[in-house]
Amino acid sequence: MDLNADVGQSFGSWSMGDDASMLRLVSSANVACGFHAGDPLTMLDSCRAAFDLDVRVGAHVGYPDLAGFGSRALDMSFDELFGDVLYQLGALDGVAHAVGASVDYVRPHGALYDRLVRDTEQAEAVVAAVHAYDPGLPALGLPGSAWLTLAEEAGHPVFREAFVDRAYNPDGTLVPRSQEGAVLQDSDDAVAQAVRLATRGEVVAHDGTVVAVEADSLWIHGDTPEALAMAGAVRKGLERAGVEIQAFA
Amino acid sequence: MDLNADVGQSFGSWSMGDDASMLRLVSSANVACGFHAGDPLTMLDSCRAAFDLDVRVGAHVGYPDLAGFGSRALDMSFDELFGDVLYQLGALDGVAHAVGASVDYVRPHGALYDRLVRDTEQAEAVVAAVHAYDPGLPALGLPGSAWLTLAEEAGHPVFREAFVDRAYNPDGTLVPRSQEGAVLQDSDDAVAQAVRLATRGEVVAHDGTVVAVEADSLWIHGDTPEALAMAGAVRKGLERAGVEIQAFA
Amino acid sequence: MDLNADVGQSFGSWSMGDDASMLRLVSSANVACGFHAGDPLTMLDSCRAAFDLDVRVGAHVGYPDLAGFGSRALDMSFDELFGDVLYQLGALDGVAHAVGASVDYVRPHGALYDRLVRDTEQAEAVVAAVHAYDPGLPALGLPGSAWLTLAEEAGHPVFREAFVDRAYNPDGTLVPRSQEGAVLQDSDDAVAQAVRLATRGEVVAHDGTVVAVEADSLWIHGDTPEALAMAGAVRKGLERAGVEIQAFA
Amino acid sequence: MDLNADVGQSFGSWSMGDDASMLRLVSSANVACGFHAGDPLTMLDSCRAAFDLDVRVGAHVGYPDLAGFGSRALDMSFDELFGDVLYQLGALDGVAHAVGASVDYVRPHGALYDRLVRDTEQAEAVVAAVHAYDPGLPALGLPGSAWLTLAEEAGHPVFREAFVDRAYNPDGTLVPRSQEGAVLQDSDDAVAQAVRLATRGEVVAHDGTVVAVEADSLWIHGDTPEALAMAGAVRKGLERAGVEIQAFA
Repeated sequence: MDLNADVGQSFGSWSMGDDASMLRLVSSANVACGFHAGDPLTMLDSCRAAFDLDVRVGAHVGYPDLAGFGSRALDMSFDELFGDVLYQLGALDGVAHAVGASVDYVRPHGALYDRLVRDTEQAEAVVAAVHAYDPGLPALGLPGSAWLTLAEEAGHPVFREAFVDRAYNPDGTLVPRSQEGAVLQDSDDAVAQAVRLATRGEVVAHDGTVVAVEADSLWIHGDTPEALAMAGAVRKGLERAGVEIQAFA
Repeated sequence: MDLNADVGQSFGSWSMGDDASMLRLVSSANVACGFHAGDPLTMLDSCRAAFDLDVRVGAHVGYPDLAGFGSRALDMSFDELFGDVLYQLGALDGVAHAVGASVDYVRPHGALYDRLVRDTEQAEAVVAAVHAYDPGLPALGLPGSAWLTLAEEAGHPVFREAFVDRAYNPDGTLVPRSQEGAVLQDSDDAVAQAVRLATRGEVVAHDGTVVAVEADSLWIHGDTPEALAMAGAVRKGLERAGVEIQAFA
Repeated sequence: MDLNADVGQSFGSWSMGDDASMLRLVSSANVACGFHAGDPLTMLDSCRAAFDLDVRVGAHVGYPDLAGFGSRALDMSFDELFGDVLYQLGALDGVAHAVGASVDYVRPHGALYDRLVRDTEQAEAVVAAVHAYDPGLPALGLPGSAWLTLAEEAGHPVFREAFVDRAYNPDGTLVPRSQEGAVLQDSDDAVAQAVRLATRGEVVAHDGTVVAVEADSLWIHGDTPEALAMAGAVRKGLERAGVEIQAFA
Repeated sequence: MDLNADVGQSFGSWSMGDDASMLRLVSSANVACGFHAGDPLTMLDSCRAAFDLDVRVGAHVGYPDLAGFGSRALDMSFDELFGDVLYQLGALDGVAHAVGASVDYVRPHGALYDRLVRDTEQAEAVVAAVHAYDPGLPALGLPGSAWLTLAEEAGHPVFREAFVDRAYNPDGTLVPRSQEGAVLQDSDDAVAQAVRLATRGEVVAHDGTVVAVEADSLWIHGDTPEALAMAGAVRKGLERAGVEIQAFA
């Protein structure tokens, strides 16, 4: 099972997250490309650290919105989004190559991630950009999203991610963040969900239903000390359950 | 003899220059990379047009200063400049590859161009970035500049450019723009200077002295209709003089 | 009748529009505030020129999106939009005061203009910001929009604008730009519509229906030489019809 | 004696400093205006907090360089700098007014602060902008700097600041940061320097010389927990020495 997390989210004099610790826990690192977060030096540091720890580098592409951290949906045209994603892929790849690494997959960030679940026009634009950049580049995302569906149709290897600390509906979709109980607060619950996802391909939905959720990767976050602790517990729990942590292939 | 010009300098809804016309006159195109000018779609259009016309694409790297068009010197550290140049190279190359082109050389833009004449620390940073990106990537710039000198020491092919519409001092340096007569206004004068540079490797300095200026490329600009007309006259004049216009190699 | 137009839309080295000509035709100038277009020097020039020509200065507030010229809807929170609008009002007012002018009204720009027709949350945020800035500041916009309705409820003088070159539906709404015939191409048609709006408070809808459209201001655009010619014709046509052009009060 | 510190330096999702704690220690707050740090919401929060705690708000104007935090000198023209400073003053003042506060003084930030010590052209531009905004607005800065000298000549009240944790040369200038010992690490030393500055108008230079340094305000920083602790010690030390902390007037 692959573990992925967002890194490289600092910008200039502002730092965010504890990349050094996170990169010791995950097998895949979503590196921000400078549009919603990240700057060239941060990207360089993230790629170098990931490379040194044998962690796979992915392009975390986002909307061009530093002030909003890419968390605000933006009505971009196909062409605009195509161009912006292509630019980000090239920029991160250029930086990655300088330290011996390379961009090995793509994951949309934030509001773009959410938008690409159903917005086929924006999903087509992102897929077209990824395809123009490298027709064999893997796509990481939500199972059933327009993003993964269209990437697969375009011939890209696709990898499905699940969430260790998010409550699921009985139909396998995520409980929206706006609803109570959407985020698991207890580390033990997250560990249990991670192990069940990794060993049985299923989760217990918020109403107790057991639902099949096949995942190639588990997304964990580590923006706060608490999150980092939970991430550590998840990694340890998976290892105890005999799950090997390794990048998807 | 190579002819080079700046293209891809539009940004979002703002357009600048007449790239379609310029790309018919030159053999090498300095494409802005989004830091001082250019945006992903503009870069895409410029690379596509250059590729279609068999014009070589170069990365026109600049300071991160859209508001100032990269025309204002910025005291960046080695690391900051290294990162910013690497990022721009990767971004443009990613965009270029999507249309079958590639980044074939690097030229510093504006205030960075001027600064790299003598500022060895900034020149070292730019050379290091270019070298980290591609140790064989050609460098285009002013003969004798720290930029070309250090690029050559690092093993990069270097190409020297001269100016068809700038007055020269008897020692082969340019008359500063702040001085009267620094820029040749008359198209005939520019054509004569271009032909002399291309056929004899020399210019007539402002005081009448004939001085040797070996150039691999002539820079022309076309931001205004007048400049475009002069550029056309220069191209025609060179062809009449039997000079073959082709990208440096 | 007031005539208003967008000015101050240049940015750095990129120029847009012919403000000097437009400011001779209108009585109110929507000055971009640096978020979707405009920069401090451009704002200063626009305010100075407007002041010299006795044209009223309005704050043309927009989304923070230079690359998209504020033409792309952005999902901002109430607080974010409140802050951004307040900031733009203060910035333009500061600049305006330096040349003896002041911000005399507010008009939302581009995608924000369109969004505020129905999005009450964003409209509330903009109204709250305008109110916090100056509880007596006039609002200019589309009749029936959430923006004007809420501004009026908050006690602001509101001014309704109509369009001289846009086709209207029989219910008094605009034909969407996506539909054929949405924009009047013929200068005579625009002049006729302007005069009818100004003298009778009505327009002829695209199906021939005559519909009442009460307007305090007519918006004209002048981004292209053709648009500028049409704007001049509209002004002349109104004057010939005995309509006095003056800022709304 | 006035105590001043930099606040409002967060940006979007990135936070910096502990403004709530700092605002309890100082009498004047240098609020970033969005060009080198700060965003409208951060500015709003800072102004509100300062107002609630009866701390004076100053405009911390800087170079337009978020990526560099305004720490990199930029070769701006007189007009460009004039416009940028005016814009920042208006923006912060607009935000401040919304919470009942106002901009009560101006202090240049970072690289601009350093540049205005000797660069008279840039100092003239900043003074001209401040003067155009409000001919009575106080200026805070380094004694003897071009900034304070020119502001005073233009009729502005000027206030001189000294540093509690910086070593001084025997001539009253600061030991450059590049030299060892430039920054006092020990809290006791900083307290002693603060008390001596406040009660006797003098400092002990690094070589033991006692030198007169008249100051109206002491700058303290609190970007780190250590700095915050030192700032608290300085405040306490001053109070114990009978120094009343209050905004300069």
